[in-house]
Amino acid sequence: MAALSFKNLLDANQITKEDALTILSLAKEYHDGSLKGKKLWDDCRGNILATLFFEPSTRTRFSFETAMLRLGGQVISLENEETTSIKKGETLADTARIISGYSDMIVMRHPKGHSVASFAEYASVPVINAGDGANQHPTQALVDLYTIFREKGRLENLTIGFMGDLKYSRTVFCLLTVLSHYKNNFIFIAPPSLKISDERKKVLAKQNSNIREVENLDEVIGELDILYATRVQGERFATKEEYDKVKDSYSLSKKDLVKAKKDVIIMHPLPRVNEIHPEVDSLPNAKYFEQAANGVFARMALLSLMKK
Amino acid sequence: MAALSFKNLLDANQITKEDALTILSLAKEYHDGSLKGKKLWDDCRGNILATLFFEPSTRTRFSFETAMLRLGGQVISLENEETTSIKKGETLADTARIISGYSDMIVMRHPKGHSVASFAEYASVPVINAGDGANQHPTQALVDLYTIFREKGRLENLTIGFMGDLKYSRTVFCLLTVLSHYKNNFIFIAPPSLKISDERKKVLAKQNSNIREVENLDEVIGELDILYATRVQGERFATKEEYDKVKDSYSLSKKDLVKAKKDVIIMHPLPRVNEIHPEVDSLPNAKYFEQAANGVFARMALLSLMKK
Amino acid sequence: MAALSFKNLLDANQITKEDALTILSLAKEYHDGSLKGKKLWDDCRGNILATLFFEPSTRTRFSFETAMLRLGGQVISLENEETTSIKKGETLADTARIISGYSDMIVMRHPKGHSVASFAEYASVPVINAGDGANQHPTQALVDLYTIFREKGRLENLTIGFMGDLKYSRTVFCLLTVLSHYKNNFIFIAPPSLKISDERKKVLAKQNSNIREVENLDEVIGELDILYATRVQGERFATKEEYDKVKDSYSLSKKDLVKAKKDVIIMHPLPRVNEIHPEVDSLPNAKYFEQAANGVFARMALLSLMKK
Repeated sequence: MAALSFKNLLDANQITKEDALTILSLAKEYHDGSLKGKKLWDDCRGNILATLFFEPSTRTRFSFETAMLRLGGQVISLENEETTSIKKGETLADTARIISGYSDMIVMRHPKGHSVASFAEYASVPVINAGDGANQHPTQALVDLYTIFREKGRLENLTIGFMGDLKYSRTVFCLLTVLSHYKNNFIFIAPPSLKISDERKKVLAKQNSNIREVENLDEVIGELDILYATRVQGERFATKEEYDKVKDSYSLSKKDLVKAKKDVIIMHPLPRVNEIHPEVDSLPNAKYFEQAANGVFARMALLSLMKK
Repeated sequence: MAALSFKNLLDANQITKEDALTILSLAKEYHDGSLKGKKLWDDCRGNILATLFFEPSTRTRFSFETAMLRLGGQVISLENEETTSIKKGETLADTARIISGYSDMIVMRHPKGHSVASFAEYASVPVINAGDGANQHPTQALVDLYTIFREKGRLENLTIGFMGDLKYSRTVFCLLTVLSHYKNNFIFIAPPSLKISDERKKVLAKQNSNIREVENLDEVIGELDILYATRVQGERFATKEEYDKVKDSYSLSKKDLVKAKKDVIIMHPLPRVNEIHPEVDSLPNAKYFEQAANGVFARMALLSLMKK
Repeated sequence: MAALSFKNLLDANQITKEDALTILSLAKEYHDGSLKGKKLWDDCRGNILATLFFEPSTRTRFSFETAMLRLGGQVISLENEETTSIKKGETLADTARIISGYSDMIVMRHPKGHSVASFAEYASVPVINAGDGANQHPTQALVDLYTIFREKGRLENLTIGFMGDLKYSRTVFCLLTVLSHYKNNFIFIAPPSLKISDERKKVLAKQNSNIREVENLDEVIGELDILYATRVQGERFATKEEYDKVKDSYSLSKKDLVKAKKDVIIMHPLPRVNEIHPEVDSLPNAKYFEQAANGVFARMALLSLMKK
């Protein structure tokens, strides 16, 4: 099996084009096996995964734990930051060295940016960043990439609309990073206050893809192969009035899709609040629940390839 | 193996006489194997159970988790509601669809009545209600039914006394529901303020069993094959005086059993506070700890039969 | 396999010289296997361990859970005391009887001294004390004993310095208890306010070992085979001034080791705060992280030998 280029996965930038191909191919293999009724693999038998959530995220934790259990491995789990030695004044470096003695791999979420990287420096087993504050969430990008691959059969020559909060979304940044290996058309759909930052646009300009910015979905819906919606969080706005003004333009309902391509797919990292109306759920285009389920297969591939 | 009549177990009313027989027979098989030293079965190997406790209940959670592990399956566990996306505003419907992608079966407890049924509507894997507020706790009824079956060798022609809070007890309601398939004599022993409701008596009147109501255990103790005690909760009473007046009459001690049948069995759903004096624990009639242990076998049977 | 002298492990005093030898030999076997790449044993297959933490300790919980999982067993886990029936007024005796029906072995931590012993009285499966307040933590003593055995190849004729808070440290007391089977030289290094108590000195006087007390590490560092540092907790002192006066003398840095034996080993039960400067971590003498990792092997041996 082809090896990955990294020991720890801390940042979406570490994922090379070759890494992505290796991970996606293996994820597909697990996925296809699963559709044929296979529920248990032996690829991580004997391995113990420690899931350390210093900030709760049941969905991400479950996705990793299920991935490890389906591979025949086992899990030890910290669900709740309150219960740690950190409270006794222990450094992350010490925690890393100690948990390395209890497990074969570590998945960690922490509210503080770059803390997982500091932790990994002292761990002797592979570490995966499952979200460190506003900074990175590289496995979400893999899940999204795998969903595009699975649904569209390719990773290039796609017109992808990103809609909602493009200023703060960690998810969108990470996905754009792994997509940088491929040539696509990106359309950013956001109100002025949530537009993608100039700094980030400069990074994108150096890459292969074409980019375009609009304020309304309606202008571009007919062109999209993929519509990636994100959460528009009220607390990002200066005033409630400002929020109320934009929130509906970024709330997707059936009528917004009238002019869409028949095979456009709709993605969302979930949880959603008002960004997608429940009436959309029953359309064959809605792929956000498949996207969540795909997370298990993408993470199975990653765990399987990263284990020592 | 005979199939059950339901896909999800949400309400004790779903359990037909045939279902009960199928579940109890298989529970007995696991139990007998266990007494011969068998600790591990393969009947759920490869299956992952998600236990979602939006209200804590260590006892019920452990009982289900142990059942799944003894069957060779695995468990992912939410012990603490605080850690979920629900806090981010996610609907139960979305949670159901997402957790369905991570597991092969879901056990859920929730403080709100009927919430598990709403959840199950959107789940694509089997869902078991492990308690939804004051509404239902159908697996407790199965555990109780199995205990009666195990201890008495039959489910009919029994005189069963229900003592304590019969007005609010979810446990008693659920057990009466599954007992409705059989002809028995029910004696309700409660103070006026905790008597079984008229509405519920109407339901019982349509069933096979004879019912009788008394205020004192002493009047009927000699007739009972089974005495099922429940917790009398102080907070159900208008005043502390009213509570203090009745609480002792519904606290069982050795002297209350002087006139009892030699083979009467005493059951209680636990936890108990003052309803049964610890001096009763050493009597051969005390079966409430066996009842708790029986829960694992009844739930093993249920999980094994419900898995897809 | 030689049987242990105890059914429950509640107190370091229960561990006989024969028990210690049996446990250490098996721990070494697991450890050596692990160094050769073995990650999974079958010695506890089919067994379920319940870890009941009525006080959080992620490190100790993980160490036991990993031990059980490496032995092929399974785990049910209570991470958080808030979620128990104890809150509903249940006694520890009832909890013990019920959890015995769900598991094959129980590891318990509780903030109240002697509570694990009271619990074990009513449990029908083996119980291990994983810390009961200021009273006992016998498996930490086994971990420490195993580390000495592993690093020094012997358990006697050693000069061992205990430094820091010798007045309150549960860890030091438990280790001294298991070391009482062997003849060694103990040097206690502590400020007057944290000296070992007269009562405890009387117990030690009856044993095989020589004891000596000093106030400064510098006087004795050259003699030591082992330096066991413990945490000096600010809250033990009457005033901040008193604490500030002593804390630095009991904070180990490289310069304190200039006159030390080349092969002195440094141990600490962890978590540490200021007791050992991070610059010491890279010395070959620093063995506190190995000590933590050794905990898994010592506990594997214990679980394997205690299982029914």
